[in-house]
Amino acid sequence: MEREEVHSGWRHELHTIIYEADTPAGKIFDITLVVLIVLSVMLVMLESIKGIDAKFHQPLLILEWVVTIFFTFEYFARIISIKKPFKYIFSFYGMVDLLSTLPLYLSYFFVGSQALIAVRALRLLRIFRILKLVKFLGEASQLRAALKASRAKIAVFIYVVVILSIIMGTIMYLIEGDEAGFTSIPRSIYWTIVTLTTVGYGDIAPQTNLGQFIATVIMILGYGIIAVPTGIVTVEFSKYGKNRNSGNAIVHTNTQCCPSCAAEGHRDGAKYCYNCGDHL
Amino acid sequence: MEREEVHSGWRHELHTIIYEADTPAGKIFDITLVVLIVLSVMLVMLESIKGIDAKFHQPLLILEWVVTIFFTFEYFARIISIKKPFKYIFSFYGMVDLLSTLPLYLSYFFVGSQALIAVRALRLLRIFRILKLVKFLGEASQLRAALKASRAKIAVFIYVVVILSIIMGTIMYLIEGDEAGFTSIPRSIYWTIVTLTTVGYGDIAPQTNLGQFIATVIMILGYGIIAVPTGIVTVEFSKYGKNRNSGNAIVHTNTQCCPSCAAEGHRDGAKYCYNCGDHL
Amino acid sequence: MEREEVHSGWRHELHTIIYEADTPAGKIFDITLVVLIVLSVMLVMLESIKGIDAKFHQPLLILEWVVTIFFTFEYFARIISIKKPFKYIFSFYGMVDLLSTLPLYLSYFFVGSQALIAVRALRLLRIFRILKLVKFLGEASQLRAALKASRAKIAVFIYVVVILSIIMGTIMYLIEGDEAGFTSIPRSIYWTIVTLTTVGYGDIAPQTNLGQFIATVIMILGYGIIAVPTGIVTVEFSKYGKNRNSGNAIVHTNTQCCPSCAAEGHRDGAKYCYNCGDHL
Amino acid sequence: MEREEVHSGWRHELHTIIYEADTPAGKIFDITLVVLIVLSVMLVMLESIKGIDAKFHQPLLILEWVVTIFFTFEYFARIISIKKPFKYIFSFYGMVDLLSTLPLYLSYFFVGSQALIAVRALRLLRIFRILKLVKFLGEASQLRAALKASRAKIAVFIYVVVILSIIMGTIMYLIEGDEAGFTSIPRSIYWTIVTLTTVGYGDIAPQTNLGQFIATVIMILGYGIIAVPTGIVTVEFSKYGKNRNSGNAIVHTNTQCCPSCAAEGHRDGAKYCYNCGDHL
Repeated sequence: MEREEVHSGWRHELHTIIYEADTPAGKIFDITLVVLIVLSVMLVMLESIKGIDAKFHQPLLILEWVVTIFFTFEYFARIISIKKPFKYIFSFYGMVDLLSTLPLYLSYFFVGSQALIAVRALRLLRIFRILKLVKFLGEASQLRAALKASRAKIAVFIYVVVILSIIMGTIMYLIEGDEAGFTSIPRSIYWTIVTLTTVGYGDIAPQTNLGQFIATVIMILGYGIIAVPTGIVTVEFSKYGKNRNSGNAIVHTNTQCCPSCAAEGHRDGAKYCYNCGDHL
Repeated sequence: MEREEVHSGWRHELHTIIYEADTPAGKIFDITLVVLIVLSVMLVMLESIKGIDAKFHQPLLILEWVVTIFFTFEYFARIISIKKPFKYIFSFYGMVDLLSTLPLYLSYFFVGSQALIAVRALRLLRIFRILKLVKFLGEASQLRAALKASRAKIAVFIYVVVILSIIMGTIMYLIEGDEAGFTSIPRSIYWTIVTLTTVGYGDIAPQTNLGQFIATVIMILGYGIIAVPTGIVTVEFSKYGKNRNSGNAIVHTNTQCCPSCAAEGHRDGAKYCYNCGDHL
Repeated sequence: MEREEVHSGWRHELHTIIYEADTPAGKIFDITLVVLIVLSVMLVMLESIKGIDAKFHQPLLILEWVVTIFFTFEYFARIISIKKPFKYIFSFYGMVDLLSTLPLYLSYFFVGSQALIAVRALRLLRIFRILKLVKFLGEASQLRAALKASRAKIAVFIYVVVILSIIMGTIMYLIEGDEAGFTSIPRSIYWTIVTLTTVGYGDIAPQTNLGQFIATVIMILGYGIIAVPTGIVTVEFSKYGKNRNSGNAIVHTNTQCCPSCAAEGHRDGAKYCYNCGDHL
Repeated sequence: MEREEVHSGWRHELHTIIYEADTPAGKIFDITLVVLIVLSVMLVMLESIKGIDAKFHQPLLILEWVVTIFFTFEYFARIISIKKPFKYIFSFYGMVDLLSTLPLYLSYFFVGSQALIAVRALRLLRIFRILKLVKFLGEASQLRAALKASRAKIAVFIYVVVILSIIMGTIMYLIEGDEAGFTSIPRSIYWTIVTLTTVGYGDIAPQTNLGQFIATVIMILGYGIIAVPTGIVTVEFSKYGKNRNSGNAIVHTNTQCCPSCAAEGHRDGAKYCYNCGDHL
């Protein structure tokens, strides 16, 4: 496959290492990245356990700094080595990479910045691509397509469920009152959804006979209602499955990544990026 | 589209504003209505939270009056501007509009009238139409058609589940007795349905070995039984989906509303109401 | 439809009243029976509520005697008016009718005879036939056929789930121990099934980190496993639905009942019982 | 069916008894084995119940020894009577047979060896074959094939669910804090999965309004998400069902077992093992 020198030499090399996985250096980089992403998520978890944080606060903080510095370098390397850096910066992965690197820096300035650590888990999505799980990517996009097609039906369904929950929640609030834990309508709605989705914590439970009877009705309703999204999704899946089998729909994608805009999922043998038209 | 002067001038204009959404005035009216419906539901919720009601009782009551007065005017305007007012008054939406307006007035005469506020949430269904969610309306009617077709099967299913629950509830009452919370057969039936639908609050739970064994059987039964409504609905959905794709079944509907009977869902280009035969 | 005098006159008339619903007397008998069956189930429930039983013990007992005596007469009338009484006595409904009549008589001799009252709820199944819900009977038999066809698959499935529950239960018993409520392996298996079926009472819940991790695995397993019976039943339903639509499979049944063996579900226009070959 | 003398006489006879079920001796052996496998699982359960173990420790231990010695002899008999013993030893059933025999012996040397008793339940899988449930085996392999085909999709699905749980768990940890039981991020993730899978123990439950709102979102998400594996599996099942009906796919298998490698599931009338090529 011919490829022009799109950047100066070292930049191109950096691009090959970071964005692709065909060279030995690229593979080592990818494996390091997977390990550090998993490590960074583990660190957040371990720090939150009081006993562990008390004993190992120092080593955990050091590891956190190691991970953060690696991610910082990686972030800037990604920006430098790409032709259209803003495409990367404002892409989904670009935002995730930035937000999952910031918390440690910000923790010296703001108190609430810890909230950003939740974003870090999204980096785990990168592992799909890194581990060459192209086959799985295909499956994922199949799932996504089926869910997208049934989006409108599911929206209608959820809207109706919410209205039903508000009505049932209000009724239960009027029947049960404070003693059973139905202290306000929002709380009763919370209980109704807990019941309708068959979660059933039991932190709030009806005490009166009438309340228990209505709860029974809600449960049987929920039993029937759960069939609806399943039916919708199954039908979409079965449509999608048929289309896929019936002809020319299968396009093999590869792990290559556009040097300009970092778009992924190019067809095998593609010469130009489907997204920005640049030479691959 | 030609349209005769069905009413005197102002009445017709009022009809265009209230029942349709094609003019600027109609759009402003619709948006106001959506905001006030959502507000009215929010008010009911906020009033039920003790802390908030204690602090903001006065402003909440004023807002409640504003909403109620608007709804009152809207209700009478709807009656005046339609050719066959009784069709509207006794329609589903007509009843909902009336019942969700009354609570504040009735609260000065009766104590239990608060129960009507639960009806107010049903007004949220109007938002479907107001927001021109015609596409979604199509989806909703699709769902409705599939559920209607599987109604008989689901009725049989629920009847069998209820009989099963009575039998299992009676057995558990005889086995477990008062200590475990199975204080009466209705309560045991309540527990059986909680278990069969996989809700599982845990407020009542079997303590004896035999009771736990039977509970296990009920759970596995429930696991299998949940497959039945799902299977029914899925098959209906897939039938419906096929019919829709196979030909001339798709009819585009619009947001227009019959000036005589307020029926909705007319075909694009329809000249006469499919419901009362009047000129649109 | 010609019909020979199969019994002496009054016996035949009794048969028409009890087993069929085409004459006014038969209809009155059927409605009385429905009312008394529902009443008898209600009585059992009300007696079990301490407060109500304390206040209304006497009237409840009298009503119980009324129902029992009616059922006793009905049982003997059914035996007398049929040509082959043993067919009825040993049929499913015959056993249910006997067992739901006995408890009150036996309560004077044995203490545990109350357990038979659970059988009474099975009489509710008769209502299907009495209320001429032939259409629903068709639906029920459709459900039954689909469930029967998927019986083997569901048996395999449940067997595998039970083995899985024993293994997981044993592991959780070894990990969690007594403090968290996992006091024995059967109890741990009970917990595993509570979790796997997504019931989740919370009366027993893992406390250790390892226990919670394994619980998480069991839940996600359960999440996937619940798909299996649903998939099986859906596929059977969809097969059945297709067969029904594709031709000569629909046979209209009626509410007639064989005077010899009390078999139901004869085809419209059938002259001989499909079960015992007798003239209808 | 001709069969050469593959071993010396007694070895061949032993093979016929242990691995096949066509002779009276083989049937007696199989039934004994089923009884002892079930007994061995029951023993493990009974020993774990304190009350029973305290009373019947001695007889339970003796029975445990009887079972263990039988299993030991059976294990060596299986090795001796097969031509390629290593094929058996390293097969799934070989490992299970060994591990479920060891615990009693090891309990004299190691303390933690009890953990192996969980393996014993896997021996219950043998009952499928022993009871000539070939028909059921077919069903099981059908289930297995469908699950295998949807493996990739389910893996993607579970991976996404895990990432979602980590994100939601972290958010809930930050919102709820220690009072409500969200003492660490792993514990919050545990709670998220408990909620998302609709298990809902209630040992941990959100207390704040914001926490309850997010919990509501997670539940409705879980409600929708549960549709995904069901949809996947249903579509696979329906594909498989179609293939099976459309032609030459049905191959009748029998309970025979290769004397060389103990492979099962040979076609009726097969002369050579499909696995090792030996004469059956």
